Amino acid sequence: MKFSFQLEAVDGAARAGRLQTAHGEVATPVFMAVGTAGTVKAMTADAVRATGTKVVLGNTYHLMLRPTAERVGRLGGLHKMMDWPGPILTDSGGFQVMSLAKLRKLDEAGVTFQSHIDGSRHFLSPERSMEIQHLLDATITMVLDECTKFPATHDEAADSMRLSTRWAKRSRAAFVARAGYGQFGIVQGSVYQDLRRESAAALREMDFEGYAIGGLAVGEGQAMMYDMLDITAPLLPAQKPRYLMGVGTPDDLLGSVARGVDMFDCVMPTRAGRTARAFTAAGVLNLRNARFIDDAAPLDAECACVCCARHTRAYLHHLFRCEEMLGPMLLTAHNLTYYQTLMAGARAAILTGAYGDYCARIRAGWQADG
Amino acid sequence: MKFSFQLEAVDGAARAGRLQTAHGEVATPVFMAVGTAGTVKAMTADAVRATGTKVVLGNTYHLMLRPTAERVGRLGGLHKMMDWPGPILTDSGGFQVMSLAKLRKLDEAGVTFQSHIDGSRHFLSPERSMEIQHLLDATITMVLDECTKFPATHDEAADSMRLSTRWAKRSRAAFVARAGYGQFGIVQGSVYQDLRRESAAALREMDFEGYAIGGLAVGEGQAMMYDMLDITAPLLPAQKPRYLMGVGTPDDLLGSVARGVDMFDCVMPTRAGRTARAFTAAGVLNLRNARFIDDAAPLDAECACVCCARHTRAYLHHLFRCEEMLGPMLLTAHNLTYYQTLMAGARAAILTGAYGDYCARIRAGWQADG
Repeated sequence: MKFSFQLEAVDGAARAGRLQTAHGEVATPVFMAVGTAGTVKAMTADAVRATGTKVVLGNTYHLMLRPTAERVGRLGGLHKMMDWPGPILTDSGGFQVMSLAKLRKLDEAGVTFQSHIDGSRHFLSPERSMEIQHLLDATITMVLDECTKFPATHDEAADSMRLSTRWAKRSRAAFVARAGYGQFGIVQGSVYQDLRRESAAALREMDFEGYAIGGLAVGEGQAMMYDMLDITAPLLPAQKPRYLMGVGTPDDLLGSVARGVDMFDCVMPTRAGRTARAFTAAGVLNLRNARFIDDAAPLDAECACVCCARHTRAYLHHLFRCEEMLGPMLLTAHNLTYYQTLMAGARAAILTGAYGDYCARIRAGWQADG
Repeated sequence: MKFSFQLEAVDGAARAGRLQTAHGEVATPVFMAVGTAGTVKAMTADAVRATGTKVVLGNTYHLMLRPTAERVGRLGGLHKMMDWPGPILTDSGGFQVMSLAKLRKLDEAGVTFQSHIDGSRHFLSPERSMEIQHLLDATITMVLDECTKFPATHDEAADSMRLSTRWAKRSRAAFVARAGYGQFGIVQGSVYQDLRRESAAALREMDFEGYAIGGLAVGEGQAMMYDMLDITAPLLPAQKPRYLMGVGTPDDLLGSVARGVDMFDCVMPTRAGRTARAFTAAGVLNLRNARFIDDAAPLDAECACVCCARHTRAYLHHLFRCEEMLGPMLLTAHNLTYYQTLMAGARAAILTGAYGDYCARIRAGWQADG
């Protein structure tokens, strides 16, 4: 079993493909559910599967602190620990060290930091990140990079990107190749076309199994993000999967698929679900809103998930008012189902050359309510 | 479809039977899961069903405040609202008015109180409680009673029991009989044999579809509770179901079944599940305990629930340490499964005349760990 990607169809720049991995096949474009600490929050693994989710993401930063990579390894890896035999992608830990940890010190060797939980000291280098992801048994391992701050001057972005490039090389060397497992490089370069070009060229030489586009969705706005995708996607090999990290809203996903992205992850559907916000065919609804108190309609009449098939908006409103756990549970299930259905529809449309029509239809629906 | 109870076997005082209701059949002895505000906390209805639970309990006090009985009625009743087509028992609201509400004023007519949530004023009488439970569409309606405080003098207990008796009569008159629906009277009388006798005799004259034993598990201790059961159960008609309200630990259940009780409800398995305590064949375990940090064994090797079949104690420990919702979700599923399995085993043993052996074997298992 080789880790491989087959491009099945293109529609403009949008792509439909299939990823083969040691833990199963994945049809693309695909949205990966975030399972930070070895659990997709508020969901059993069976409930995640019921949403149509095929790939789960684990966070190296969280897992290295609790329960530790060594413990996950002793339990047989993340798949076994969290009852997820399907593909798992792990990030490198770098992004969250910079956003969550305290007293960070970064140099050429790596980054020293204190845990945000108990203040304990830790060190993350390309080699250690690869070791951790190996212990977690990640199907897809990400290189350790520095997520360039935004905004950054050209000089700052260049220095940061070149450090990430050197770390990518060390990450590639430290990666233990196994049949059906892959490693992705991460293109950086902030909003500078020449730097994105330099980064992509260097990473292509390292011949990764896939390529991520990093340093976006960090405050630059959707228009700038799309500009960077228009520049960066064509720099990446057509026969390898492309992953836009940490993105995004349903609209971001549609626009990014249109620009050649195959893979996404984001906390948005799960986090929104825990705070009573639902993504629906008619736009975003906040179920805490009093207008739902007597609304006997399903959350989304077009959705077949357990939340929409069995319950009313009035019940969901009641659950959130009472702060019952079932509210987040049902809305997370719905939001993930919505994201998966959106991506399945995108794929079907790309395969028939109707992706533009599909996006227009979906976006028109969002205007219907709000 | 008549609401009825068939006694299938007795083993000493222990009974196995079947309850026929408009919402399905229930084998007894039965443990009913508490679904206070229209949800068994941390569980989807499908997850509750997967534990073997057949009956869910709803709390009139909580539901009359949020979302209100009228709203539940407009949504088609509690069964439809919470995706529970099976039998639902609702309490009268009286117990929680006394334990949760503020500024209570009780007289012959009923009880006036302020909501513990927003201070709003409400009135609960036997007639209003019956109306609320009717709007909720309860399969089994409980009479409004006053849960006698403990300890109480003989005079206090007598006055309280006689008020409850008058309220039971008004509750019976206000109950709207429907095919397959039943109403239970509640025996009071504190720890006084003569008062229990007087209460049971008066309630028997009202010919309820079932009889609850109230005012126990309020601080009197297991020995005194068992004494009261020994006194009270024989006062109740053999051909009607007997329900011990708000009880209890697995050991309480075994001991109470041995004394002729058919039905139970308690927050214990669900509340314990949310606070990391698990009921197992080897006794109660606290999953927060550091000794489980590397324990790759299932929570309970004898249990087939999703928690035990798919996960390790180390993972459960990790989930509770990280305060992930999945911890309470999995442990609630397990604890309810444990209670249902315990009752199914009790029933099977009673049917073969081996209930004493069954209890001895289960109790020996609890000593194995702790």
